[in-house]
Amino acid sequence: MKAIQGFGVSKVVDSDDPDFKPGDLVSGLTGWEEFSLMRKHEQLRRIQQDDIPLSYHVGLLGMAGFTAYAGFYEVCSPEIGEKVFVSAASGAVGQLVGQLAKLHGCYVVGSAGTSQKVDILKNKLGFDQAFNYKEEPDLNAALKRYFPEGIDIYFDNVGGDMLEAALLNMRIHGRIAVCGMVSSNSLSVSKGIHNLFSLIAKRIRMQGFLQSDYLHLYPRFFENVVSNYKQGKIVYIEDMSEGLESAPAALVGLFSGKNVGKQVIRVARE
Amino acid sequence: MKAIQGFGVSKVVDSDDPDFKPGDLVSGLTGWEEFSLMRKHEQLRRIQQDDIPLSYHVGLLGMAGFTAYAGFYEVCSPEIGEKVFVSAASGAVGQLVGQLAKLHGCYVVGSAGTSQKVDILKNKLGFDQAFNYKEEPDLNAALKRYFPEGIDIYFDNVGGDMLEAALLNMRIHGRIAVCGMVSSNSLSVSKGIHNLFSLIAKRIRMQGFLQSDYLHLYPRFFENVVSNYKQGKIVYIEDMSEGLESAPAALVGLFSGKNVGKQVIRVARE
Repeated sequence: MKAIQGFGVSKVVDSDDPDFKPGDLVSGLTGWEEFSLMRKHEQLRRIQQDDIPLSYHVGLLGMAGFTAYAGFYEVCSPEIGEKVFVSAASGAVGQLVGQLAKLHGCYVVGSAGTSQKVDILKNKLGFDQAFNYKEEPDLNAALKRYFPEGIDIYFDNVGGDMLEAALLNMRIHGRIAVCGMVSSNSLSVSKGIHNLFSLIAKRIRMQGFLQSDYLHLYPRFFENVVSNYKQGKIVYIEDMSEGLESAPAALVGLFSGKNVGKQVIRVARE
Repeated sequence: MKAIQGFGVSKVVDSDDPDFKPGDLVSGLTGWEEFSLMRKHEQLRRIQQDDIPLSYHVGLLGMAGFTAYAGFYEVCSPEIGEKVFVSAASGAVGQLVGQLAKLHGCYVVGSAGTSQKVDILKNKLGFDQAFNYKEEPDLNAALKRYFPEGIDIYFDNVGGDMLEAALLNMRIHGRIAVCGMVSSNSLSVSKGIHNLFSLIAKRIRMQGFLQSDYLHLYPRFFENVVSNYKQGKIVYIEDMSEGLESAPAALVGLFSGKNVGKQVIRVARE
């Protein structure tokens, strides 16, 4: 039986590829298993071990972090001083989007689903404001409160009701980066997205993207984020579960927002 | 009482502005009336009379035509050989979008609401294919039939069910220019747009726009379209009603698709 796949950090035990030697550390798509047999090596990145936690190579420096970087810089076309809204803002992607936006000189507000996450956004991740969407009976009113002059950039990780509310609060020539649609409303067959007429009146650009289209920018991203991390200008919150046996519950927890920050499973210690 | 406003072609009867002399022809926002008092002249364009029908200055060379031009070239980023779908394709905007796309070397399919309009699209306007959406029980299947390899560019004049079907048939890196949402489904409060998850998987750019953002391109547009018209490479279909008294019925007719081509009201003859 083939193991479920997922991004992981691994140590090479044995290899007949001269590019990978026993003891090398690599990140890439491996199995939910303690030992993996890798036949294709193209998607593996070699890791230089330094003072960056190894787990960051599947989050901050992996697909999640690079999604944040490519989405914010290449899709959102940010300008200094613009107003940025991030949903699922404490998640694996959102937390870096917000920090990059702050470093870029933007005003940044994030939404999340618990008061603990809101606290992290404001006090650890440096967002200007944050709110718990579950405590807001009217998302449109909530966004009007945090963005009285409107939103220039909406980095959308959820779709659904929040996207509908954001559409009503976008500024002229606003941009919406469509990164995820995990809300139950987006996945439901019965409910579509209202308020798309705002796209015309406000001349909004709404763009879906995948990080895999921007891999040529990965080296620049890596250098930028590592440098900012080492200077203490970027932090990264992880939710670490211990042992392969914790993986199924951790995966399910993602869909109810149980995780705080990037969900990681520790299969082995160094 | 103030007259309803609309774009029109007028002859100057009297003027205290040295830029406009009696006898000059102008196009711009005037009233639904036989004589208009214009206090602001910034939005008036002087018309050079030649062998172009005067009425074309409110359609082909007016807001509708310029919307088609700006939307197609500036929003859709067309490449030679791409597959283009236009809804409300025989309308004031759609008919020029299709012809510009053909001139650009694209494959172009249009949808319209009567067999007469479909015939015009195929036999007068040079679309590669056209279909009557009212005779298609399954719009997704219809688009799959005309675009077996998918749609690169969707110029959306209607929203609603057609937008949902187009989202399912877009190619990777496709573009959707959101120009109008006149379908009853788009205007309905109860129904939103499904299938927006396609934006992510296919990395689609969906962009609303207004021609007024591109006025610096108007001279280039005018020269391009006039030149193509004079060479017989562009035609323009109008639906001319006679007399101011026909205007209310003509306006209402737009919402049921009664007009064939650009709806124009002839208030006076030269």
